[in-house]
Amino acid sequence: MTSAPTTSRDVRVAILGCGNVGAALVGIVQDRADALAVQSGARFTIAGIAVHDLDAPRPAHVPRDLLTADAAGLVADRDVDIVVELIGGLEPAGSLVRAALAAGHPVVTANKALLASPDGVALRTLARERGVDLLYEAAVAGAIPLVRALRESLTGERIHRVMGIVNGTTNFILTKMGEQGADYATVLAEAQELGLAERDPTADVEGFDAAAKAAILAGVAFGYNVSDDAVVREGITGITSSDVDFARRAGYVIKLLAIVERSGEAGLSVRVHPALVPDAHPLAGVRGAFNAVFIEGEAAGELMLYGQGAGGLPTASAVVGDLIDATRNLLAGTTAPAPDREPAHLVPEDDLEAGFYISLDVADRPGVLGAVTTAFGDNGVSIRSVEQEGTSGEARLVFVTHLAREGDVRATLATLGGLDVVERIGGVMRIVGAA
Amino acid sequence: MTSAPTTSRDVRVAILGCGNVGAALVGIVQDRADALAVQSGARFTIAGIAVHDLDAPRPAHVPRDLLTADAAGLVADRDVDIVVELIGGLEPAGSLVRAALAAGHPVVTANKALLASPDGVALRTLARERGVDLLYEAAVAGAIPLVRALRESLTGERIHRVMGIVNGTTNFILTKMGEQGADYATVLAEAQELGLAERDPTADVEGFDAAAKAAILAGVAFGYNVSDDAVVREGITGITSSDVDFARRAGYVIKLLAIVERSGEAGLSVRVHPALVPDAHPLAGVRGAFNAVFIEGEAAGELMLYGQGAGGLPTASAVVGDLIDATRNLLAGTTAPAPDREPAHLVPEDDLEAGFYISLDVADRPGVLGAVTTAFGDNGVSIRSVEQEGTSGEARLVFVTHLAREGDVRATLATLGGLDVVERIGGVMRIVGAA
Repeated sequence: MTSAPTTSRDVRVAILGCGNVGAALVGIVQDRADALAVQSGARFTIAGIAVHDLDAPRPAHVPRDLLTADAAGLVADRDVDIVVELIGGLEPAGSLVRAALAAGHPVVTANKALLASPDGVALRTLARERGVDLLYEAAVAGAIPLVRALRESLTGERIHRVMGIVNGTTNFILTKMGEQGADYATVLAEAQELGLAERDPTADVEGFDAAAKAAILAGVAFGYNVSDDAVVREGITGITSSDVDFARRAGYVIKLLAIVERSGEAGLSVRVHPALVPDAHPLAGVRGAFNAVFIEGEAAGELMLYGQGAGGLPTASAVVGDLIDATRNLLAGTTAPAPDREPAHLVPEDDLEAGFYISLDVADRPGVLGAVTTAFGDNGVSIRSVEQEGTSGEARLVFVTHLAREGDVRATLATLGGLDVVERIGGVMRIVGAA
Repeated sequence: MTSAPTTSRDVRVAILGCGNVGAALVGIVQDRADALAVQSGARFTIAGIAVHDLDAPRPAHVPRDLLTADAAGLVADRDVDIVVELIGGLEPAGSLVRAALAAGHPVVTANKALLASPDGVALRTLARERGVDLLYEAAVAGAIPLVRALRESLTGERIHRVMGIVNGTTNFILTKMGEQGADYATVLAEAQELGLAERDPTADVEGFDAAAKAAILAGVAFGYNVSDDAVVREGITGITSSDVDFARRAGYVIKLLAIVERSGEAGLSVRVHPALVPDAHPLAGVRGAFNAVFIEGEAAGELMLYGQGAGGLPTASAVVGDLIDATRNLLAGTTAPAPDREPAHLVPEDDLEAGFYISLDVADRPGVLGAVTTAFGDNGVSIRSVEQEGTSGEARLVFVTHLAREGDVRATLATLGGLDVVERIGGVMRIVGAA
């Protein structure tokens, strides 16, 4: 491991973007040059680092003379061998990746938004046509070696379901709410203070970030093309301390999950929503800003991969793995496997089944429980347990249902909403991972 | 994913051994033929299945006409493309793998004992010389895609430490002891009844199985050749309900861990022993017969991979991943990366540091605590906490130390053993994973 190879080709890497991840990548390429040469068979030279603002402050180890504001020019440089795209977002990242692939350069990217967009499919097709790698381990769950595990180790496996905690911000918030009993707004403010949540937290807390990752997982784990706008999505902004408290007492924790699962013969369900996860489930123990992806396969059984989902160094670590892979493939004249994908047949939400947690504020008077439970029964939803907490003149009923069709639960909620005695429909969440 | 490829090469696979894993592999190759062809680029034909006893009872799906008692003849068959070795143990498996590699056949094996033996190094070298794959994802932690993650995704990563629960039998026993308060012998008997422990459980409970896996991890994660006889090893047979009970009250669980970690500039420590793991550590939540490997890397941070470590189908799932990999490489004329390894510089145990749990049965009379704590202090071991449980005429002292050199702890135990007031030295275990 420690001896540098005597002969190795030079591979020139263009880095697009120099934020936390880009700067960390530059550091690793500098500090671990010998080890990377042993592993990849090539000595990496940074051909250039494209940035938006040449004069922005950067860590001292980033060589000023490699910076350029001309990303398109860098990608077009005939001496570049591999392009690493770390700009993020749809444009100009998409055009630059397209240009790189069209020029026959392998591309390594951490850009989940781009890959999960309808353009992602076109870029994948272009890479195949040009016979070059388009690798994106860093786009889902940061440092966790998930994409390669699914693409290579589990490629022969028939996967039934993938459930992931793929957004560290929301997992931090939900963990704090669960362990400290604090309410959503307080913990969000704390996360913003710590730099774990953006000032505009919408992408995280409304599940958009997780939805992009779910779309990518649908491709990698199941071989279906799904774009993020087709992902059923629900965020965590409506979760109250009372929901969290009930979950804890009942033996659950609340997690925002990205779920991709087969449904019926050829159907797929791709969704992001908060869910009650039993304490004994491996996902329940994933705390703070960590990510984890739980995989259920036919032969492999239950697997979970856990690690840091974000941050400069962890994400750069995943980029380095792809960079080595792309380099080996380039030198060997091959590419990583990228089998054909088909459009997914997404099953209607109403046909999915889950157990549900439903919290209702009701008038505290005789006959209420009967009226409410009748609404469940009339819509074909069977109640597993109900718990009543009285306050003066008002009461809260917390229901846990048996497995129920989502359509039937939706109909039940509509019926409940029409009842005089129901003051408010509170938390409604699916229960997953129960035995 | 569902369409079979229109053109694909036939790849003929020789399977050596037809126990649980072999039979499961035959089933997967039969049932998922189309999917495997899409993923690998080849249609698998089973060239033959070598077994010890042609007449032993086998599942109905195993074709009788493919069975042969002549394993060496099957390996020598010129029409064989890839050899899968599932016999286990050193011989005849070692000779058969050697013959296959020498004949230029890629080999997929689940044989941890062989790979961890001094022969393992020679086989690895032979594979490199012949330019063929020797793949062994199934040899460590069953279905968990660990070897490929370390070999490819994390290949650019400087890994500091790998800690694994890599033996399902002992984790089942320790989980039951922890959750039910049962003693070792009772739970071992239960595990034997359930088929989770052998009638002679030595290989599992004395840590030999975990030691072989630790040796393999030293190679895959750190690039060092280590054979299993060089692994420091301690089993779980001495663990009592009282140890487990103290651990629980103090916020720990007891796990048998295989640990490989860097020590100093160029040193490596490779060991298997029971340890107290804090409840909040991800390894603490790994229950029953599950396996998990916790990895600490410089850039990636903390990672954990969790899943089923044994069983026919899960292990066969890992074999299938390797089979697809070997096939792709065969068709592309490449091999999986297998960089040079160096012999490890194993650090002396005495120089390692850990916090320790030490339980002593002592005479219940004045002055005992003073004499005992003096023994710690005289040997340079600092006490973090001590707890005293009195019984009539006798008492138990439970110490938790600060970080201490193992050599100093050993010296302390020697001193304690020479004290009149110490009736018995009970559990002595390292504490790992504490903040």
